[in-house]
Amino acid sequence: MRPSGRKLSELRPISIETGVMSHAEGSCLVRIGGTHVLCSASVEDKPPPFLRGTGQGWVTAEYGMLPRATHTRNRREAASGKQSGRTQEIQRLVGRALRAGVDRQALGERQIVIDCDVIQADGGTRCAAITGGWVALRLAVNRLLEARLLTSDPIIDHVAAVSCGIYAGQPVLDLDYAEDSAAGTDGNFVLTGAGRLVEIQMSAEGAAFTRTEMESLLDLAEAGLAQLVAAQKAAVA
Amino acid sequence: MRPSGRKLSELRPISIETGVMSHAEGSCLVRIGGTHVLCSASVEDKPPPFLRGTGQGWVTAEYGMLPRATHTRNRREAASGKQSGRTQEIQRLVGRALRAGVDRQALGERQIVIDCDVIQADGGTRCAAITGGWVALRLAVNRLLEARLLTSDPIIDHVAAVSCGIYAGQPVLDLDYAEDSAAGTDGNFVLTGAGRLVEIQMSAEGAAFTRTEMESLLDLAEAGLAQLVAAQKAAVA
Amino acid sequence: MRPSGRKLSELRPISIETGVMSHAEGSCLVRIGGTHVLCSASVEDKPPPFLRGTGQGWVTAEYGMLPRATHTRNRREAASGKQSGRTQEIQRLVGRALRAGVDRQALGERQIVIDCDVIQADGGTRCAAITGGWVALRLAVNRLLEARLLTSDPIIDHVAAVSCGIYAGQPVLDLDYAEDSAAGTDGNFVLTGAGRLVEIQMSAEGAAFTRTEMESLLDLAEAGLAQLVAAQKAAVA
Amino acid sequence: MRPSGRKLSELRPISIETGVMSHAEGSCLVRIGGTHVLCSASVEDKPPPFLRGTGQGWVTAEYGMLPRATHTRNRREAASGKQSGRTQEIQRLVGRALRAGVDRQALGERQIVIDCDVIQADGGTRCAAITGGWVALRLAVNRLLEARLLTSDPIIDHVAAVSCGIYAGQPVLDLDYAEDSAAGTDGNFVLTGAGRLVEIQMSAEGAAFTRTEMESLLDLAEAGLAQLVAAQKAAVA
Amino acid sequence: MRPSGRKLSELRPISIETGVMSHAEGSCLVRIGGTHVLCSASVEDKPPPFLRGTGQGWVTAEYGMLPRATHTRNRREAASGKQSGRTQEIQRLVGRALRAGVDRQALGERQIVIDCDVIQADGGTRCAAITGGWVALRLAVNRLLEARLLTSDPIIDHVAAVSCGIYAGQPVLDLDYAEDSAAGTDGNFVLTGAGRLVEIQMSAEGAAFTRTEMESLLDLAEAGLAQLVAAQKAAVA
Amino acid sequence: MRPSGRKLSELRPISIETGVMSHAEGSCLVRIGGTHVLCSASVEDKPPPFLRGTGQGWVTAEYGMLPRATHTRNRREAASGKQSGRTQEIQRLVGRALRAGVDRQALGERQIVIDCDVIQADGGTRCAAITGGWVALRLAVNRLLEARLLTSDPIIDHVAAVSCGIYAGQPVLDLDYAEDSAAGTDGNFVLTGAGRLVEIQMSAEGAAFTRTEMESLLDLAEAGLAQLVAAQKAAVA
Repeated sequence: MRPSGRKLSELRPISIETGVMSHAEGSCLVRIGGTHVLCSASVEDKPPPFLRGTGQGWVTAEYGMLPRATHTRNRREAASGKQSGRTQEIQRLVGRALRAGVDRQALGERQIVIDCDVIQADGGTRCAAITGGWVALRLAVNRLLEARLLTSDPIIDHVAAVSCGIYAGQPVLDLDYAEDSAAGTDGNFVLTGAGRLVEIQMSAEGAAFTRTEMESLLDLAEAGLAQLVAAQKAAVA
Repeated sequence: MRPSGRKLSELRPISIETGVMSHAEGSCLVRIGGTHVLCSASVEDKPPPFLRGTGQGWVTAEYGMLPRATHTRNRREAASGKQSGRTQEIQRLVGRALRAGVDRQALGERQIVIDCDVIQADGGTRCAAITGGWVALRLAVNRLLEARLLTSDPIIDHVAAVSCGIYAGQPVLDLDYAEDSAAGTDGNFVLTGAGRLVEIQMSAEGAAFTRTEMESLLDLAEAGLAQLVAAQKAAVA
Repeated sequence: MRPSGRKLSELRPISIETGVMSHAEGSCLVRIGGTHVLCSASVEDKPPPFLRGTGQGWVTAEYGMLPRATHTRNRREAASGKQSGRTQEIQRLVGRALRAGVDRQALGERQIVIDCDVIQADGGTRCAAITGGWVALRLAVNRLLEARLLTSDPIIDHVAAVSCGIYAGQPVLDLDYAEDSAAGTDGNFVLTGAGRLVEIQMSAEGAAFTRTEMESLLDLAEAGLAQLVAAQKAAVA
Repeated sequence: MRPSGRKLSELRPISIETGVMSHAEGSCLVRIGGTHVLCSASVEDKPPPFLRGTGQGWVTAEYGMLPRATHTRNRREAASGKQSGRTQEIQRLVGRALRAGVDRQALGERQIVIDCDVIQADGGTRCAAITGGWVALRLAVNRLLEARLLTSDPIIDHVAAVSCGIYAGQPVLDLDYAEDSAAGTDGNFVLTGAGRLVEIQMSAEGAAFTRTEMESLLDLAEAGLAQLVAAQKAAVA
Repeated sequence: MRPSGRKLSELRPISIETGVMSHAEGSCLVRIGGTHVLCSASVEDKPPPFLRGTGQGWVTAEYGMLPRATHTRNRREAASGKQSGRTQEIQRLVGRALRAGVDRQALGERQIVIDCDVIQADGGTRCAAITGGWVALRLAVNRLLEARLLTSDPIIDHVAAVSCGIYAGQPVLDLDYAEDSAAGTDGNFVLTGAGRLVEIQMSAEGAAFTRTEMESLLDLAEAGLAQLVAAQKAAVA
Repeated sequence: MRPSGRKLSELRPISIETGVMSHAEGSCLVRIGGTHVLCSASVEDKPPPFLRGTGQGWVTAEYGMLPRATHTRNRREAASGKQSGRTQEIQRLVGRALRAGVDRQALGERQIVIDCDVIQADGGTRCAAITGGWVALRLAVNRLLEARLLTSDPIIDHVAAVSCGIYAGQPVLDLDYAEDSAAGTDGNFVLTGAGRLVEIQMSAEGAAFTRTEMESLLDLAEAGLAQLVAAQKAAVA
């Protein structure tokens, strides 16, 4: 029934290749089916101004998409002179999601910037950015621990994300572009390794949805989480 | 327990005054406690370019906040030269939410722009903007119906929104600023008059939350909806 | 003869409601006929950089207009990414006008920002902004005096403004939009409570005007001033 | 008494050199003492969009200042990414002033853009821009008349401008920078060749001024006008 | 003597992997040592406005760098709101270079946009962008030929580029970052497959250079060209 | 054969008038045929941030063009909100070129900003900007030496520039606009007084060029240099 032939609760193939950007403290190329996102983590010695003197650190994210990551070319945001509302919304989400997995006191007064750049898009780029961004963050923190710049691990748990939606009347896991374009309701679910919820964003451009539908999507997301976390574990091992 | 002395499931006082901007096809000043938002609806004869020739219309929203709507003055966005990510995120939400209550085919090739400007902020401005924006939209559509520019009513149902959060360990309805600043988890819930869901945005900057907590917040939102819809009905009567 | 039926030297009804923005140190909603402007005063502890160490303070103003304050919707300046020349010209005028009524040495090293946001426009918005802006400023200074942060009153005199113009060949006071659109020559006159002149801006897009015409407009402005100052006095009493 | 040793009612030396920009339809370098402004007129075949189909033309102006036209270098507006409020205010004034001397019906559906670029500034740049801008405009219109693209002369009269102010307690004509910086009250007066008024802008950053002072400045401006118009006549002869 | 141990006239290892961006009409990932650039070609049905109706097409290029392509993170240009002078200079160069290898008449009224995004930088990014950009262009044109949208091949010849410089007193081929930072004089040389010159950019931030030095760098560039063209040929075979 | 009737190796008439901007530490108006550029040098007490504490100074340049310096009016960059890629490319070139003639250690921790504003354009504006910019720089440094703010002369040698190109199949010196528009290949050559090379920029939008052609253009540039340097010497004498 799904355009890709996947089962309703089947994720696309996941691959996470680390160390792809040699200058970054942590980096990976995450591929969720046809969605490919380069994620890097850059450690900065100073926290943002609003945290100076608090002993706390910060994790933030920026998101971009190469102009031809999509079916037709999009205008380069650097050329148009501003980031779209969509871009800003996504990077704010990625930052919030990753911070939920970090003890900012233990991180100390530094900032880690996660850059997520979509090389190829086939739906679910923000979820891939979170899943891959966590791997880049984990690797950068590992390096700080190895260099004894950190004495305890500020990372509390895995954070990963997946989209679900009602496609052709059925709840499906991990929407690709063809499904996403046609889905009446969809949502992005960010969870921790322990299965707690970090962020839920559900939206109905078409008809409103019921609480039962919402529950079924959340069930799917919880079911998909284990594989994403397993891929993260394998990548950073 | 709540700073305002309200019960856990108690909304703030709601008032919706219509006709406050004489040039607009529809307008209201919605007050939810100390949060005051001016909402206007402007009818434009043409739809946005991507809908020309489709027979469908569009509803979009813009959001702003007066510099001194808040405890300390914020920089005017027109002076800083761009809308913040927060502003863009909110106005995208308001637009999506209101479109969910509209039959865009019945609206025909026109656009209605909902402007939501926060005069005074005390938490929940985006929810107030949706609740008040719907009233402005309803009034503008009424005018189109009266002028026989529309033959059938494109408005399917009420749309209203409320925030809920975990404050001091308890789920509470309709967070004010004091609660919002301290809440571990909070969410914005957009519902239709029939109680269906249009948008859920839940977020944990602090600790992740459980599915049980999510359910309790959604219960509160559903309970609060009736009063918001009643206030809308009284306003447009 | 006037579209509104007013006499040549008749102001529109004036109302000034104070305390309308609870977070501001001073605020009012000034209504001059169909022109409604929200004015707030925000006290900042530091003067602008060019006054640091001089012992002097500053009063500045910003001006905005809600998109649907006018007959047809204007593009939101925050969305277009810049303030128009008209906006900048007006806010510079409002700031200069209000500074003329302030002893900046007595104000000390602080800044008061006056925000003037037009909710509804029917001609004369810049004059209403000055008249209402003075009330917000007065209230904010009163609060500084009450808190003994100021030992002497830095406000020297009232400052108020009114427009006049040649409409249908006759000099008229306080142009509304219908008159303003049709007037050959018009001017904005800013005066002190004592009747001295702070600013005169007269302009002829159409035919040039004579000195006699200029004198007649100034006579009208001087005559209208008393009522504006009386309304300010009643508002801050 | 004046820093330059001039009499109270004495203009600075005026020189207007035409034909200084070979590509422009009209151009001049106007020098009023140490204030030097390059003015060019560019004829465009089409009016601005809001006049299409009306049979009327438009005259508009743009103003700029070379970074080192002043005592210390100013940031280049093209580099800072926007025109200052001052620049916009001036170019709006120059455009309005020149339009007051033009019959836009006789001009027909075309636009003439007057560019005024300050090479060296010593006070009164906006007045010099108007006085020189008129010469560039006159020359460009002459060319249209010679080419029989116009059948009647759309220029109604000369337009010229001069500043006056209260300096050291005395009304003085044509303020230079030293006087302008110290003047309590100053004004810019735009007049036609026939001595009618086009624009008056008077402003008191310091103490408010009296009507008597205003009259004395206007007297000076009227007296100075003849020399400016004579210089314009000599330049275009 | 070279930091990398390479011989003076030795290029870094070259690899060009095609088909890396599935939506693009042509794409490759070019790796010249540690410099990795993603290049895509997007075919647009219409030429830029200045070529409409001329029967000619256009090739243009855009250039970007991921924030963490470099040793320390650079600010994202989309976030800073503009492309740097360096970025604009490079993308203009890439566009000019590639157009030199194209018969724009044979291309017909369409535009091909080459996007070059640097994933990892180690000197010579603009040269890699040209070398890889040509491969993306070649692949996109092949697709147009296969689809019979073109009847004759508009590509005249290979275009490739390499940098050379005086490092530690010696002329060296293909500078990496360590050499580039220390080089007194360096240049970028763009050549065709036939060995003709398309662009030379030589620059001395330090001491000026002699004509003899210039000749020696050009000799090196000509010598290095063959390998670059061979790599292009292998990639598109 | 040349449109101007000049010989192949003939420069246009050169004139350099100094002291044309009275506030600048150094200034000139350079005229190379119909290309007229105002150049000023502004001395700033502080170096740019990246040189603080290094003991070294900096020379930088900015470039602009009056809107009607060209055949048809160009949009003012300050109004369009950004400098074009061409402008940025030119001002980076001018800065690099002038720095090549300066001992930045001897200059000490200060910055000299060279502003080059094209009043009238007829080809070769960037070369004229370099040639005239050097004169402004020389005059400003002379003033620092006279004021004993510098103890040794930081200027190492003259820097001047000229364009050459293949026009109608012949190598010609100092292209004017008519030649530049038609030239297949052209280049800009920056040289020192001693005849060493500072910058070479050669480009073929049309057919690629041969090394022999390149040599012939370089021969012409070297031949033209003497006259440019002689004009500089005369100007600063």
